[in-house]
Amino acid sequence: MKREGSYLGLPEDVSARARRGRGRSTGLEQWLLRRLREAMGNPAVRVTLWDGYTAGEPGARGQPTLVIGDRSALWRLLTNPGLNFGDDYSAGRLNVEGSLTALLEAVYRARPNPADSTLAYRLAFSRRLRRRPNSLAGSRGNIHHHYDIGNDFYRMWLDPDMAYTCAYYPQPDMDLGAAQRAKMEHICRKLRLRPGQTVVEAGCGWGGLSRYMASHHGVRVAAYNISPQQITYARQRAQADGLDHRIDYIEDDYRNIRGDYDAFVSVGMLEHVGPEHFGELGAVIRRCLKPAGLGLIHSIGQNCSEPMNAWVEKRIFPGAYPPTLAEMTTIFEPNELTVLDVENLRLHYARTLQHWLERFEGRRDDVRQMFDEKFVRAWRLYLAASIANFSTGWLQLFQVAFTGARNNALPESRAHLYQNGPSFQAHG
Amino acid sequence: MKREGSYLGLPEDVSARARRGRGRSTGLEQWLLRRLREAMGNPAVRVTLWDGYTAGEPGARGQPTLVIGDRSALWRLLTNPGLNFGDDYSAGRLNVEGSLTALLEAVYRARPNPADSTLAYRLAFSRRLRRRPNSLAGSRGNIHHHYDIGNDFYRMWLDPDMAYTCAYYPQPDMDLGAAQRAKMEHICRKLRLRPGQTVVEAGCGWGGLSRYMASHHGVRVAAYNISPQQITYARQRAQADGLDHRIDYIEDDYRNIRGDYDAFVSVGMLEHVGPEHFGELGAVIRRCLKPAGLGLIHSIGQNCSEPMNAWVEKRIFPGAYPPTLAEMTTIFEPNELTVLDVENLRLHYARTLQHWLERFEGRRDDVRQMFDEKFVRAWRLYLAASIANFSTGWLQLFQVAFTGARNNALPESRAHLYQNGPSFQAHG
Repeated sequence: MKREGSYLGLPEDVSARARRGRGRSTGLEQWLLRRLREAMGNPAVRVTLWDGYTAGEPGARGQPTLVIGDRSALWRLLTNPGLNFGDDYSAGRLNVEGSLTALLEAVYRARPNPADSTLAYRLAFSRRLRRRPNSLAGSRGNIHHHYDIGNDFYRMWLDPDMAYTCAYYPQPDMDLGAAQRAKMEHICRKLRLRPGQTVVEAGCGWGGLSRYMASHHGVRVAAYNISPQQITYARQRAQADGLDHRIDYIEDDYRNIRGDYDAFVSVGMLEHVGPEHFGELGAVIRRCLKPAGLGLIHSIGQNCSEPMNAWVEKRIFPGAYPPTLAEMTTIFEPNELTVLDVENLRLHYARTLQHWLERFEGRRDDVRQMFDEKFVRAWRLYLAASIANFSTGWLQLFQVAFTGARNNALPESRAHLYQNGPSFQAHG
Repeated sequence: MKREGSYLGLPEDVSARARRGRGRSTGLEQWLLRRLREAMGNPAVRVTLWDGYTAGEPGARGQPTLVIGDRSALWRLLTNPGLNFGDDYSAGRLNVEGSLTALLEAVYRARPNPADSTLAYRLAFSRRLRRRPNSLAGSRGNIHHHYDIGNDFYRMWLDPDMAYTCAYYPQPDMDLGAAQRAKMEHICRKLRLRPGQTVVEAGCGWGGLSRYMASHHGVRVAAYNISPQQITYARQRAQADGLDHRIDYIEDDYRNIRGDYDAFVSVGMLEHVGPEHFGELGAVIRRCLKPAGLGLIHSIGQNCSEPMNAWVEKRIFPGAYPPTLAEMTTIFEPNELTVLDVENLRLHYARTLQHWLERFEGRRDDVRQMFDEKFVRAWRLYLAASIANFSTGWLQLFQVAFTGARNNALPESRAHLYQNGPSFQAHG
């Protein structure tokens, strides 16, 4: 497991630096460390101070270890763990011996359900930032922060189609590219696409799904996105693939969608919409979907309404929020839309993220050159924490198919989703 | 279409009686009739007074006609349509020429979405009874009212397995019995039942599903029900089929379920639970489901939170309420349960009810002999109104599969639900 330790664990030099005494830890600091671990529900991890003092089961070998590198990192962790863990891990003042993902999984497994959590736990862990607003202007800024890091960065570790959303692994040994194509085919089948139909896509990313729908199902696509870099890339790819006569990329907000379509699809955008705008989104769908039209929204979700982790919200995904299924229904219920099918793909996202993390680590020297070590550590943490959130059940992936409330042109069953051999017709 | 007219339409003699002048209608009554039809959104039906005065498109032949038989029926319809329509139809003071189902479908199609409805519409149609409480004692009374009408009555028109819930028609030409068996197999596959497992069923009806699970999937079942007549019937059938060593019928409330099970299933009970008790139901499930256990709840639902029609609540189903999907999530979200799969079988229920109504009409002379003409008319109205509610999209049928929030022993896809040839192993 050399590879595991070297790419998820602690680089030797940083560990050495962290251990170069910052003075001996005091009794108070050691007591606080034990209380911290208790407040976290005593997860199956060891926590070590800069001078080697350790809280955790003695001799629990093989357990991942969090190394707190200096006095101020301890105090920062005590006062605002949600934000400071990420910042101090990125800065190398917190380190992990063993697997970072396994450490986070152990922490998340010990975390009590919000309904059952104690006041002490909530005081310690619920200090969060206010979510940045997703107004028309706010959304542009929020999306720019994450998606315009640079196409070259994402190209290093995403699949060839540049899908940056949960893949679908009906066979567990699929590689990332095959699983992303399987996801796109699964969505097209849920939408029952037929050649000549029109589809509107809200939040099209780098355009992988629109290219797939146009080339494999012969539909025309109007694809909306407010990330300039993604739109530029998507247009170039469509042109190179000879699909530009079938796909219209529109650099605009979902709220400005116009037209009348046979299908509505949105994959990985809802997390950036904010539940206060779900009714608006539903009204857009109601307006642009034909009476017999089908729709699908694919989004990260959660079981309890909780804000995103403060660090992820601040450093990685400003304005993001994974809705509960109940919150998602506010898109449909007031807007004469009926939910036909919900599929939870939670473990598929854990696997997708595992593939991304492996590919990311394989290119970390290039990423470091493009940015710096801090960036590498921040993204490693973000990807590992995401794996842990999905694998321990704190995050879900909901694919929700829906239609107009009065549409009776529905299939007899969902068997058509599972017929062998996708109907890959070529529609030049 | 003689048969259609004779069994869904108006018996000749009642029609004649209704038309035997109650005096000529006044200008005010005629004006009120036109306003009533307008307030209903001008549905594609004709409405006729006792003296032949008609509101509706002139010459709209083929449209079903509502005949208001006397002066007081008109005033009663104006003051409390939700309750009095049903009572006066049952009493033969309101009659329908043409198809009753088609008339109700036309009315429901014209009905505005609650979010969009005018104040006048709400004043006219929202007068409802307070729902009867579903406390432990209240539930017993409510369930007795409907399910203890008599096993002989239900046996006349249900399928041989006595399933009184939505069937599943993966092939549209299936007969009722085959579709009920397909529904049971579909549920067993969603629960991934394996021989030797234990299942708890909340609200087992006449025991059809428990017998199917025990005989086709080799599981042991603890089946709860608070209807004495249903439990007696279920015990006799299990004994006759030699399944009594595998099925334990318990005459008790779902709130008193005890034990530790591999699966939880409830088909057609949630409508009688009441959303104020959903958290309690979820806590019962959390307590009795093993960590890797799977659950399924099958329930009538709706898109907007609205009380049941007052007449159905009062005469047919006291205490009943079809929840929204958002309300259903309150079972799961606070109780560390995760929704895996939601399937909406709305049109399957319209077809099931159509089969029930046909069979009911085939036995209406026997039903009349057992009860009286009023009962026949009330049940005809209830079945026809249910068809119309499902076919026009006002009611849904949600099958929700779920599991413990941390259960990672999940199938790779839902393909196993659609493999040909159900594995009908015999487990004597």
